[in-house]
Amino acid sequence: MTGERTTRATPEAAADQLALDRVLDGIGPLDAGAMAMAAAHLDRLTKPPGSLGQLETLVIELAGITGRADPSVEQGVMVIAAGDHGVTRQGVSAYPSDVTAQMVANFVAGGAAINVLGAWAGLRVVVVDAGVASPIPTLGADPVRGGRLVQARIRDGTADMTLGPAMTRAEALRAVAVGIDLAGELSAGGVDLVGIGEMGIGNTTAASAICAVLTGRPVAEVTGRGTGIDDATHRHKIAAIERALEVNGPDRRDPIGVLAAVGGLEIALLVGVILGAAEASIPVVLDGFITGSAALVAVALQPAVAPRLIAAHRSIEPGHAVILETLGRRPLLDLDLRLGEGTGAALAMGLITAAVRVRDEMATFESAAISGPTASEGPGDAGPA
Amino acid sequence: MTGERTTRATPEAAADQLALDRVLDGIGPLDAGAMAMAAAHLDRLTKPPGSLGQLETLVIELAGITGRADPSVEQGVMVIAAGDHGVTRQGVSAYPSDVTAQMVANFVAGGAAINVLGAWAGLRVVVVDAGVASPIPTLGADPVRGGRLVQARIRDGTADMTLGPAMTRAEALRAVAVGIDLAGELSAGGVDLVGIGEMGIGNTTAASAICAVLTGRPVAEVTGRGTGIDDATHRHKIAAIERALEVNGPDRRDPIGVLAAVGGLEIALLVGVILGAAEASIPVVLDGFITGSAALVAVALQPAVAPRLIAAHRSIEPGHAVILETLGRRPLLDLDLRLGEGTGAALAMGLITAAVRVRDEMATFESAAISGPTASEGPGDAGPA
Repeated sequence: MTGERTTRATPEAAADQLALDRVLDGIGPLDAGAMAMAAAHLDRLTKPPGSLGQLETLVIELAGITGRADPSVEQGVMVIAAGDHGVTRQGVSAYPSDVTAQMVANFVAGGAAINVLGAWAGLRVVVVDAGVASPIPTLGADPVRGGRLVQARIRDGTADMTLGPAMTRAEALRAVAVGIDLAGELSAGGVDLVGIGEMGIGNTTAASAICAVLTGRPVAEVTGRGTGIDDATHRHKIAAIERALEVNGPDRRDPIGVLAAVGGLEIALLVGVILGAAEASIPVVLDGFITGSAALVAVALQPAVAPRLIAAHRSIEPGHAVILETLGRRPLLDLDLRLGEGTGAALAMGLITAAVRVRDEMATFESAAISGPTASEGPGDAGPA
Repeated sequence: MTGERTTRATPEAAADQLALDRVLDGIGPLDAGAMAMAAAHLDRLTKPPGSLGQLETLVIELAGITGRADPSVEQGVMVIAAGDHGVTRQGVSAYPSDVTAQMVANFVAGGAAINVLGAWAGLRVVVVDAGVASPIPTLGADPVRGGRLVQARIRDGTADMTLGPAMTRAEALRAVAVGIDLAGELSAGGVDLVGIGEMGIGNTTAASAICAVLTGRPVAEVTGRGTGIDDATHRHKIAAIERALEVNGPDRRDPIGVLAAVGGLEIALLVGVILGAAEASIPVVLDGFITGSAALVAVALQPAVAPRLIAAHRSIEPGHAVILETLGRRPLLDLDLRLGEGTGAALAMGLITAAVRVRDEMATFESAAISGPTASEGPGDAGPA
């Protein structure tokens, strides 16, 4: 497999592979019994059956994922993974790499969009340095809205994927294992809903490359404008990804190899968070295109992950629609978001809280003494159902 | 005009018409200066310009509606108007009319979906009896989540529109005037965001009739299944509306006449709330099909109302898409909701709060010391924008 050519099978890498295999084996199908019980309860509430549409679907899905007819979302966390990308040296982004570290500092200080939307949704924010290239500036930490910084830097950014693999297979496995451990720690702490977000100048390039390999679609079809690049830079970005695929020849049957060849450290870490949360029966809320590419890798490793994912929104990145279709997930929101950070996921997590509150707090037909549908009554009645 | 044939020009009706004319004259265009200032502020925040999509559009619209570059949404209220419909005697609904009064009691007791979603969004709930047919049962009032009941019953439900006008012109004007007064009271109390919802067994029939008249579309195209009726009842509902239009001959150039002929008391009251809020520069969040039909009437009376409306969601009622297109409003959500009560509006009001918090709480590029887009750097750089 392609990714292996750059890797010695060190004891650390072997241990990380073992941890990964154990988690993959622990992920099973949804709990059909819990889903049926949740659906039956929803039909006793004072509303026509199914009239709350996707909110009801959400409750039923959460029941299946958690194995509880009354799923709880009391402790939501937003995990933002950050990493830099050597491919930015090819001029694929509108912003310089330094912005990654600066934005990590902004997340800790509480000034970014995700801090505001996380606070709105009642989430704790955890920021993980998976592979930022430069030192994180100190802006001070906001105790209320600011994120907790987890230092897990595997290397100072990836290598330029147009010249060779972005990272070694061992580094990709390490990042995945760190993500698995983080999910385990969150689960042990009582977290019952995980959103994922990311920060990394250049990471739409990595996500497009992953998407092209794992879905088999042409690079041009799944490559967009990221933070906002012009036509010439867009053509250049597509050419850079095509070159990276030629140089590395990633094999879609080896998802970890794909991650190593054209992925990112933050994307690899999120693959681990997704898998660890899925194994712990915690629902995972995806954000946009980058987190979607992590989901593609996770689902390629273990297809039973797919129904455990909640798609927050439809990004305007063209590859995102392809990813959602491949995952078979319908997004909750379509608000033309293209920021990342987990902003779409945070908005969706607010809606998820609303859906669970409907299940928990509404009166039933019996408790509120409300009549059900009529059998047949009244002159001229053609017989309502 | 058709509606007038059932009305004496009483002093009360003349006063209500005068109050309506005064409000219509008081509604002007959006504040372009406030919109430009809001847009400029959004571009200073630590995110690529426009990357929060519809959230940014919302902030700019709110600025235009309120005339404030920093619009506030501290005091949101959900106004639920309730009324019964004589046309239910034709067997157009799956539920008996009694459910309207029972659900009003449920709103006061805090057990309905709108109470839960209103609490989620931080809203006060106000329930107005505009014309329920039966006494409101006493379930007790929940002081936290329950709604305040406003007694404004104009008559005990409308007449059967298939046999003649649903109400007199004076009654329609009275309901509109009560809505205008309520909006004025809310505005005086500091309310800065109004959502509208409704309850009324049979009111999708009235909404479809209004929609057909005011948009000129065929009845069959704008008539759906409401709370869930079978094929035979659906055909029967379409036939009943066609008969009502034949019997009453409503004239689309006379929106109050249309309301009187085929509308509902709760719909008429919501027309007044929309107009009163628009005149007070308070943004109005529409819910689904029924509130959309009230918006059609309001916009027919005063086209400057349209950009002051926020469309919460796309209902699965087929007439709703026609209404949104006519109003030129893009909905924030598409969650297959078909409950009414204001449930979609409450969800959207949560998102509106999130959008305003982004404007108010995010750091700027300067305050967070974040680099802007690069001019041109790095080897192989094709020049990012």
